[in-house]
Amino acid sequence: MSSQNQPPSRWATRRAEKQRRIARVASIADGAVLPTDRMVEVLQNLIAPGDRVVVEGNNQKQADFLSRSLAKVDPEIVHGLHLIIPSVSRAEHLDLFERGIARKLDFAFAGAQSLRISQFLQDGILEIGSIHTYAELYGRLYVDLTPNVVLVAGYKADRDGNLYTGASTEDTPALVEAAAFRDGIVIAQVNEIVDDPKDLPRVDIPGSWIDFVVQSDKPFFIEPLFTRDPRLITPVHILMAMMAIRGIYERHQVQSLNHGIGFNTAAIELILPTYGDKLGLKGKICRHWTLNPHPTLIPAIETSWVDSVHCFGGELGMEAYVAQRPDVFFTGRDGSMRSNRAMSQLAGQYAIDMFIGSTLQMDGAGNSSTVTHGRLAGFGGAPNMGHDPHGRRHATPAWLDLLQTDSPLERGRKLVVQMVETFQAGGQPTIVETIDAVEVGRETGMPIAPVMIYGDDVTHVLTEEGIAYLYKARSLEQRKEMIAAVAGVTPIGLSSSAEKRAALRRDGLIALPEDLGVHRSEANRSLLAAKSIADLVDWSDGLYEPPARYRSW
Amino acid sequence: MSSQNQPPSRWATRRAEKQRRIARVASIADGAVLPTDRMVEVLQNLIAPGDRVVVEGNNQKQADFLSRSLAKVDPEIVHGLHLIIPSVSRAEHLDLFERGIARKLDFAFAGAQSLRISQFLQDGILEIGSIHTYAELYGRLYVDLTPNVVLVAGYKADRDGNLYTGASTEDTPALVEAAAFRDGIVIAQVNEIVDDPKDLPRVDIPGSWIDFVVQSDKPFFIEPLFTRDPRLITPVHILMAMMAIRGIYERHQVQSLNHGIGFNTAAIELILPTYGDKLGLKGKICRHWTLNPHPTLIPAIETSWVDSVHCFGGELGMEAYVAQRPDVFFTGRDGSMRSNRAMSQLAGQYAIDMFIGSTLQMDGAGNSSTVTHGRLAGFGGAPNMGHDPHGRRHATPAWLDLLQTDSPLERGRKLVVQMVETFQAGGQPTIVETIDAVEVGRETGMPIAPVMIYGDDVTHVLTEEGIAYLYKARSLEQRKEMIAAVAGVTPIGLSSSAEKRAALRRDGLIALPEDLGVHRSEANRSLLAAKSIADLVDWSDGLYEPPARYRSW
Repeated sequence: MSSQNQPPSRWATRRAEKQRRIARVASIADGAVLPTDRMVEVLQNLIAPGDRVVVEGNNQKQADFLSRSLAKVDPEIVHGLHLIIPSVSRAEHLDLFERGIARKLDFAFAGAQSLRISQFLQDGILEIGSIHTYAELYGRLYVDLTPNVVLVAGYKADRDGNLYTGASTEDTPALVEAAAFRDGIVIAQVNEIVDDPKDLPRVDIPGSWIDFVVQSDKPFFIEPLFTRDPRLITPVHILMAMMAIRGIYERHQVQSLNHGIGFNTAAIELILPTYGDKLGLKGKICRHWTLNPHPTLIPAIETSWVDSVHCFGGELGMEAYVAQRPDVFFTGRDGSMRSNRAMSQLAGQYAIDMFIGSTLQMDGAGNSSTVTHGRLAGFGGAPNMGHDPHGRRHATPAWLDLLQTDSPLERGRKLVVQMVETFQAGGQPTIVETIDAVEVGRETGMPIAPVMIYGDDVTHVLTEEGIAYLYKARSLEQRKEMIAAVAGVTPIGLSSSAEKRAALRRDGLIALPEDLGVHRSEANRSLLAAKSIADLVDWSDGLYEPPARYRSW
Repeated sequence: MSSQNQPPSRWATRRAEKQRRIARVASIADGAVLPTDRMVEVLQNLIAPGDRVVVEGNNQKQADFLSRSLAKVDPEIVHGLHLIIPSVSRAEHLDLFERGIARKLDFAFAGAQSLRISQFLQDGILEIGSIHTYAELYGRLYVDLTPNVVLVAGYKADRDGNLYTGASTEDTPALVEAAAFRDGIVIAQVNEIVDDPKDLPRVDIPGSWIDFVVQSDKPFFIEPLFTRDPRLITPVHILMAMMAIRGIYERHQVQSLNHGIGFNTAAIELILPTYGDKLGLKGKICRHWTLNPHPTLIPAIETSWVDSVHCFGGELGMEAYVAQRPDVFFTGRDGSMRSNRAMSQLAGQYAIDMFIGSTLQMDGAGNSSTVTHGRLAGFGGAPNMGHDPHGRRHATPAWLDLLQTDSPLERGRKLVVQMVETFQAGGQPTIVETIDAVEVGRETGMPIAPVMIYGDDVTHVLTEEGIAYLYKARSLEQRKEMIAAVAGVTPIGLSSSAEKRAALRRDGLIALPEDLGVHRSEANRSLLAAKSIADLVDWSDGLYEPPARYRSW
């Protein structure tokens, strides 16, 4: 095959540059293995000013040894980098901008660092490419954001670079492939390098995709982001969960779904084995899930509500439980979980009946955002899953149930549910005249406001007052009326009236708990299948190992 | 780690079943290697009645030895299978239904077999799950269509199952992962099994994901589907190509795009180095592509129009050329291309400015389908890329250019262009009152009509008459008027009038060639950078090796 020949140099500039850089560390590296204590020097040799560099920042796996090392390079040598970080979660991610090593940032989510991003943007230290959803950020790695260097993390590697990511594979394969196959440089930090390839539990990414591995100074950082303590679930959460089950899950026969990480959806998970069982819904709803392994899903799994769970990433403490439930979770031959954020996002977008999420602010038309003044949080996967994918062509009962006419040219619709209490904990209304994102967008010079989920993509709004069936709205005006009718005593809610609410109920456009056969008096914590983390451990047969901070019993 | 322990048997039924089946072929297999001449017997032991079985049928890679072997099993032993085939392309895919081995089919595209699918459906021999887009079919493999068995193809494997797919990786990783990590059985046919792992050019899929490999009786079938002979490009194609470049690509600054496989888009590719150059557009439009390696893209690549191409799959004859242009194409360390249909579809949906495609029929509202009477073709990736993904949050100039108001809550829009001649070659109108898909859907009992691209997702319709800028339409009525105005002498077109057309031109809702500065007199074949396959070979420096049927010089 002529492909074995050397390509002409004018068509192989990326390859030549890669080889040039790799040659510079040849004397430092032992084959593919880099020395832990010389990483700063190595990065200065492998990364050039202005490079596009992907740094794995994920929910459950951080290339933190590499990002800490990168933050220590000499800004005279390495500067002006364009960083691509799916989830900006480490302090050093921002230190890189403070030191001038990086200049531009493309990202999808920022948790704890969202305040600092906002501040740096104002100070002119940082320039934002775009705030993406995960799925579109991965896509751009194969189009106009192909990286020069990719820094990722895994549990173990052998000396040829074969990588075992551990249960949180997350988006490592999607990040690595974009560089490995376009002459970028891939470096993986691992907790352990094994001499014998047979000591790898399994191979998640082949060694021929990885240029270098390095043993990190300490195991990569991991935080339990998807753990919700049942103790904090209130009767209001439970009332809303009951409404969700009767007025949405049962009504539309929701078989496959994604849950966010809030207490509202945790409440739903925890009353399936009690309230859901009493309604005879087992096997009829909630069979297939795309979500991280939420501990609060354990009782539903143990009572056979759940056929399958595909995970974006892992959750600290759930490793052993997941490994012992291979019928439900995706696991490898070695027994540990395999997650995959890119495939789970694809599934979460295209293959499920319903997305249900929450937000910090929603306006009267249903537009919502977690971006508020001083917090550039990003949206993660929410907009990707929280819209109706017009490219979908397969039908399910739930999807078809949202048809509004008999026209053969009308299509079904994915359920996109916003589940919010009308007021936040601090007494701030959730449902507001104008979401902060509009002003934030204007102030920071974004081309459009950073909206998380657009009102016209939302099919249902569920508050403690009731459910607005927005997919039935015939106009923007009607959609607004429906939202106002369930917006309680927020300013938006006060614009509604008893007459309007009565008319909307009569027409089936909104439903109150009593319309759904939900008794407020039943909405108490006795419905929770687990009332504490200790209960979850019991349900799991001792397999769930909650992180220290949750061990309060 | 407790995951090393054996999971309780009630939670590991899939794993036990897999082990049970694998034990049945232990005496036949040599480790992971199966004997070529005993595959029918092996499949009878590894596949059980009613199984969900994925058969790799792709554009450029067919697990045809495995599908031929499957078609020979005893229907008394293996029957009622639920087949999942991304692209139904082989006769034996349908033989499986004729013999009762398979019963139900989920698929995304059917080329040559679309007539037979239609016939079998009518005869009650075959039941269709759904017609999907590729992306949603992959998604469902991780939700409610997890396979029991996956049959795929590659070029080479070692005796541990490490797989080199060759340049057409296509969707093999997405198919394999769904089974490998949920206790399904994965069998790969390869053209060659190497004894020494070092003889594999690279590893596309790790051996720990593959249960068995078998050397096929002959190399897998491959067909040049994306090759368009420039000789067949007409002046009308060229006129339309000129209008596309001026009225769409230049106007909206389209940087990243997907092209379909028609002669219309081939004409665009071939006049970029001539007409596009004269307009000074090089470097300003069409820099990043997601598409198979079209031979007609060679002149644009050679004249430095193209920064990057990410491919869904390969194209026969383009292997050496692609391998010699690694700056442009995604290639592995071994030098050969790496394609990836799942990632390219993700990119094609989310990360590009424009999708431009064609269709067999479009109605007056812009709804289109390639499903016509007697042909259940499926849609492949067209609907996935041919809609505006509402989950997109990053802005590009083209995306922003479709904004219609100053509201910060309005979002940009992806360009979805339908490029059709008003009449098909046989004199049948392309633009019709009602697309056949409506009746086909009704007759075959589908829940909704099999529409390929919905009118409300189309932003531009381009015919030889002009361009309708549908994204500017303020109502369905106006959209229809705009389409009629460029529908020529079809019945739909005759419903328009000179007055209406003039008004629409004045308002900028439609544009005729003269409005775009396109001179009909220039629209001739002299604009084509290559006028024949031989010219393409010349452009490629002899690297492009056209298949025999195109060697007509």
